[in-house]
Amino acid sequence: MKKSIGAHTFALPAPVWVVGTYGEDKKPNIMTVAWGGICCSVPPCVTISLQKHRATYKNIFENKAFTINIPSQQQVIEADYVGIISGKDEDKFTATGLTPISSQVVNAPYIQEFPLILECRLLHTLEIGIHTQFIGEIIDVKAEEKVLGENGLPLLSKVNPPIFSPSEGAYYEVGDYVGKSYSIGLALKK
Amino acid sequence: MKKSIGAHTFALPAPVWVVGTYGEDKKPNIMTVAWGGICCSVPPCVTISLQKHRATYKNIFENKAFTINIPSQQQVIEADYVGIISGKDEDKFTATGLTPISSQVVNAPYIQEFPLILECRLLHTLEIGIHTQFIGEIIDVKAEEKVLGENGLPLLSKVNPPIFSPSEGAYYEVGDYVGKSYSIGLALKK
Repeated sequence: MKKSIGAHTFALPAPVWVVGTYGEDKKPNIMTVAWGGICCSVPPCVTISLQKHRATYKNIFENKAFTINIPSQQQVIEADYVGIISGKDEDKFTATGLTPISSQVVNAPYIQEFPLILECRLLHTLEIGIHTQFIGEIIDVKAEEKVLGENGLPLLSKVNPPIFSPSEGAYYEVGDYVGKSYSIGLALKK
Repeated sequence: MKKSIGAHTFALPAPVWVVGTYGEDKKPNIMTVAWGGICCSVPPCVTISLQKHRATYKNIFENKAFTINIPSQQQVIEADYVGIISGKDEDKFTATGLTPISSQVVNAPYIQEFPLILECRLLHTLEIGIHTQFIGEIIDVKAEEKVLGENGLPLLSKVNPPIFSPSEGAYYEVGDYVGKSYSIGLALKK
């Protein structure tokens, strides 16, 4: 029996992504977002949503670039911290011990310690409501070699990112491998 | 050491959502998407991306509505099947045994058997590349009572949706609970 629970942002699962940008004087800035996802295959694009009062909002407009830094489960405390604290009050890199590295392909910094990085060039913005959507074209993906499978591509089990649950405000781990997409469903084909 | 692996849609984690729409003569249609995410808190909005040749693409433009049906792990084979097969070749409801129910708040059907449903009214579309982005305002969320926690809101552990890994084309389970957001990061605060 279905119960109506109202108009809420309860889409599951949600990501935990740390967005890297440059502020004034090329000062590296990071903040955590959970509103986002891939939005196009060709060109490869990803979307994130930000509120206007965020430093990252202004930074992306000015530099037309950002990085998405995907943490591993071992970095969930740092990722959560970066979403709580304002860079105006405290230096987020000092507090977390994370290291900003200049991207060679877009005008934004990425986080050295995180296992998977998407380097993005701003393609579109769209005002929706209290959030503005930023669509970035993925110019390159950088990954730690230790998270790559035999085919040279990242494995979710090795990146092991936190999974966000917006309805309870909580993080979970990635669980067991289930099976291949475009494959396990064929069991139902007549 | 970071390795450059090229411009790919390797954002982790990605969702597994089944989109419900009406076709001609109000015939219920479902298809599976992995490109999407929440994109605004107020109004609560979610985005999904579709290619133009999909029946769902035309259906959303015509009805200005869709549902997002979030499966549980026990329904991953059905969700995968719905992403493989075209409704032109086979009736997806007959093949999967899933049941379409008419939403009372938007002009789209939802799946009775799935634990969590977002009922959406089309708010914006944006052409990006081979995918078009559809932004829906979430008008209501419906959930099976058994997936709700003590506060009446869905728990990721009980919805237990498949997690998609685009870089390997595979599904994973949700793992263990880690901790509260806007909370565990405070351990780093001076």
